[in-house]
Formats: sequence, C-alpha cells, structure tokens
Amino acid sequence: MKTALIQQQWLQNKETMRKRTVKMIAEASKAGAELVVLQELHQGPYFCQYEDTNLFDLAEDFEEDVRFWSGIAKENGVVLVTSLFEKRAPGLYHNTAVIFEKDGSVAGKYRKMHIPDDPGFYEKFYFTPGDLGFEPIETSVGRLGVLVCWDQWYPEAARLMALKGAEVLIYPTAIGWFDQDPEDEKKRQRDAWVTVQRGHAVANGLPLIAVNRVGFEKDESGVLDGIHFWGTSFVCGPQGEMLATASTDSEEILYCDIDLKRSEEVRRWWPFLRDRRIDAYEGLLKRFID
Amino acid sequence: MKTALIQQQWLQNKETMRKRTVKMIAEASKAGAELVVLQELHQGPYFCQYEDTNLFDLAEDFEEDVRFWSGIAKENGVVLVTSLFEKRAPGLYHNTAVIFEKDGSVAGKYRKMHIPDDPGFYEKFYFTPGDLGFEPIETSVGRLGVLVCWDQWYPEAARLMALKGAEVLIYPTAIGWFDQDPEDEKKRQRDAWVTVQRGHAVANGLPLIAVNRVGFEKDESGVLDGIHFWGTSFVCGPQGEMLATASTDSEEILYCDIDLKRSEEVRRWWPFLRDRRIDAYEGLLKRFID
Repeated sequence: MKTALIQQQWLQNKETMRKRTVKMIAEASKAGAELVVLQELHQGPYFCQYEDTNLFDLAEDFEEDVRFWSGIAKENGVVLVTSLFEKRAPGLYHNTAVIFEKDGSVAGKYRKMHIPDDPGFYEKFYFTPGDLGFEPIETSVGRLGVLVCWDQWYPEAARLMALKGAEVLIYPTAIGWFDQDPEDEKKRQRDAWVTVQRGHAVANGLPLIAVNRVGFEKDESGVLDGIHFWGTSFVCGPQGEMLATASTDSEEILYCDIDLKRSEEVRRWWPFLRDRRIDAYEGLLKRFID
Repeated sequence: MKTALIQQQWLQNKETMRKRTVKMIAEASKAGAELVVLQELHQGPYFCQYEDTNLFDLAEDFEEDVRFWSGIAKENGVVLVTSLFEKRAPGLYHNTAVIFEKDGSVAGKYRKMHIPDDPGFYEKFYFTPGDLGFEPIETSVGRLGVLVCWDQWYPEAARLMALKGAEVLIYPTAIGWFDQDPEDEKKRQRDAWVTVQRGHAVANGLPLIAVNRVGFEKDESGVLDGIHFWGTSFVCGPQGEMLATASTDSEEILYCDIDLKRSEEVRRWWPFLRDRRIDAYEGLLKRFID
C-alpha cells in the first residue's frame, strides 16, 4: 500500500492552506499514493494555544469542510485521512478525523478520545472527549485504526484498535517544543514521542503512521511564545522498525510502501495476542488502584 | 538509587554459576549498589529449549535456593531481585522472581504471568501461568514493579504495575537470536525488544530496568542449534531516555543511578494517567473483539 504523509506548516490563512494541501494531495496521488494522511487540524492554525470562545467559529463550517475534502478524495482517487474541528451542537465540539473513500464517500469518523490540557495545549476547553470509541474504519486499502495526537501516548487505544482488527495505526498529530527548553530536553521529548508509538507497533504487530505539523506557530495571546512543531512524521513496521521519517523543519510529502501482509508473519513469530492475561487485567478499568 | 544489573553467561554448572554471581553481587555492593537485579533463571541454563520431564528436577531445591539468596542479600546489604524455578506442588511449577530485603527477608515474590511458547522457548510446558497478579513489591529502596521476560511485550502488565504505584519497572529476562537469522532481522528483534520497554517507561512515566542473559547456549536436544542471548541489559528513565546499556556479548555489571523523583516531574508535564478513558477500555478484557 503506497502511502503519503503530508507534513505542513501553517500558512496563516485557511484558503491558502487548503490550496497547498490540495496541491500536495494531487502530487501524492500522481506519484501513486492510495492512502493520504494529513496532520492534526490541518485546515487551520493549532488554535488551542489559548482559550477564546471566538475560536469556536473555526468549527462552524464543519459540514462544508466534509464536502470539500470528500471532493478532493474523489478527484484524486485516494483514501484520505483528514482531521477537522467538528461542531456537533452549540457548545459541543470534537476533534474529529473524517476518513474518505476513493469515491469521496465517508468511510468513517473517529472523535479524539484522549484530550490533553497543558500550558499551550488547552484542548479540554475546545474538545469534548470522543464518544465513538476505538473503532477501526473499513476502507478499500485496509482497516484503518485512526487515532489522534494525545491518543498516541496510550497503549490502551492502540491495543483496542488491534483487538478490533485494525491493520495499521494512524495518528494525525500536533506536537512540538517550546523554544526555551534545553536541547537535551527537546531530544528526550521527541524521542519519547517516536518511541512510545514504535512500542505500540511492536506490542500489536502492526505498522504505524504518524503525521505531525512542522514549523513555528505563535501564541497570539502572548502568554507563551508559541510552539515549534517538530515534524518528524514517520512510518514504522510491525516490529517498530523505522521505514520512513520526515524532517524536523520542513513541509514534506513522505512516501512509504507499507506491506500489510508483514503483520501476519511477525505475529506468527511473536504471538503476543495469544498470551494476554485477560483474567488479570480488570484493574485497567480503574483510574488508579490504591 | 544506585542500581547494579548483573548480566551473565551460563557457566555450565550451578555451583560455579552461583559463585560467580555471588562474587559480582559482592563487587556491586562494595561499589555502593543498593538494588541488585539478576537475569532470568540465573542459577541454571535457559533450560526451556526443549521439553524434558527430568528438567523439573531443577526446581526441587527451590526452598534451599530461597534460603541461599536470602543469605547473599543479607551478607551484602542489598535489595536483591532473583529469578528462580519454583516447585509449588508435584506437577505445578512457576517462573518466580523472589525479591529480598537488605536484611535477607523476603520482600515479596512475583510469578511470571505471561508465558511464551515458541520453538526454542517451550515455557508453557514448564511454567504454570502466575496467579499472584501484577503487584508491586514494597522494599526499602522503593516500590518495585517486578515482571519477567515475556511480560515485557505487554503494555497491560506495565500499566497495572503503574496503577498500583510501582516506582520502577524491572524485568529479569532471557532473550536472544538464532544465529542463522539474517543480521537485519536480528537488529529488528533487538530494537523491538528495547523499544517496547522504553515505550512502557514513557507511557507510565517510570524508569525501567531490564537484565538479559548473554552468550550462546546450545540446544541439547539437537533440534535447533541453540540461542545466542543478546545481552543489552539496560536502564531507561521515565521519558524512555537511555541511561545505561550493557554489551551484546559479555558478562558485565552495569551500574546506574536512578532518580526515582524524576517521575514526579515528568508526570506533571505529561499527565497521561489523568486522561485515561477508563469508561471505554472494557474491550481490553476480551481476547479479541470480533
């Protein structure tokens, strides 16, 4: 399965950004990509750097956004993983991945389940935690275990997707550094982010795709400087082996041929699912066991 | 907390092996180690390469083994993590980690929960799956989340230890290559092993210690050549950052100062436990969701 990961910097304007993304999708499609994955909230800035009720306006066009990306998927004949700001009802919004089939139909959607909230990442203000569960999405290129950003730190999410038959794990994401952090701390953070995801691939015998934003985005509130998104979009195989990695500083289409059949082989060697102690996992449903 | 990981090759004889281990523990203690971790089934060969009822004899001395290592812990004033073959009743055996306090008392034990069974690793024949659950062991150096080998591939085990307040994850282990495997496959396997464990450290904000056997052990049944244990014992911190790594080919005492307080800081930055979706994890208690 030829896959294209589209890593982008924010171009300060939705129209300009969309045009650029569309151009990159067309290029990927021409290059033979069947599956195209976009980064988290790819139509706009990473707007969660501060809390402002006016920013809910960004979700007003959700229906139109869906129609727009449906058209793009169809035009280019690709399965397309988008990441949109969904208005579901007044005062009820989600961080939602909408997945389109090659004919433009909606193959399925996933509402981000784990919602972070940290200085510069005020997502609990904007996004209601998802209520669609962890359900892989059936498409013509395979069963896609689409998760979003903060989900990538949770082995539970990856495992549930695997138990429901996902053939690949996919994470549109937006993560970066604060420029004032020391270099060694930056390295630890980026390595941790790559490592925990490679770990999910290993534990579940599944390939994994992560697409991250790149470049600096100012905190318009002035409280912090802003976030320097670290790019590094990557694909790894079912042993966690790195298959492709993008740069830390540039817009990029990262291509990767993913062999979904390799999981069969790897899981025969390392049949982790066989030996899970489901009789002893009940504590996983608790917040903490004290 | 100054920690010593004792990575060893099998010396063909229990008495010789014990003497060597004891000497290394004494050296580690003199060097200031408070916690000493031994490799999986450190008193003997990795005997699970073939199935032979006579090999249950190796568990006959379990009570004496416990007394012996109790004495060594006391003599050296260290918290000692051992890995023994436990006879519990005729026909009922476990792969059991016994943890000793500095005064030689038994701080607790853990019976390996996830049992592998693959060509060259016929553990389901020898070891009844553990029935003590995933319970951290309280010691004078901290709350130890001791797991064993195959457990290291399971995010569930690490998470349960974290939810029960473990302050460090510890894995005595025995894993290696078959010499006839191609070099790139060997690399993938070893990397996967390191990566999945570093992933547990990241996901749980905990430091992690893995102690592996090293050197070649012949398959006495002649069915396979034998296993080349790949060493690579290591310690990583709560961001998965590598703190110390042993060689792939030699006996070694690997020292590492582990700062248990760092977890507090890392978990404040990345409060993963806060956002777990325990309302949506029920599927984790299923074998597969089809």
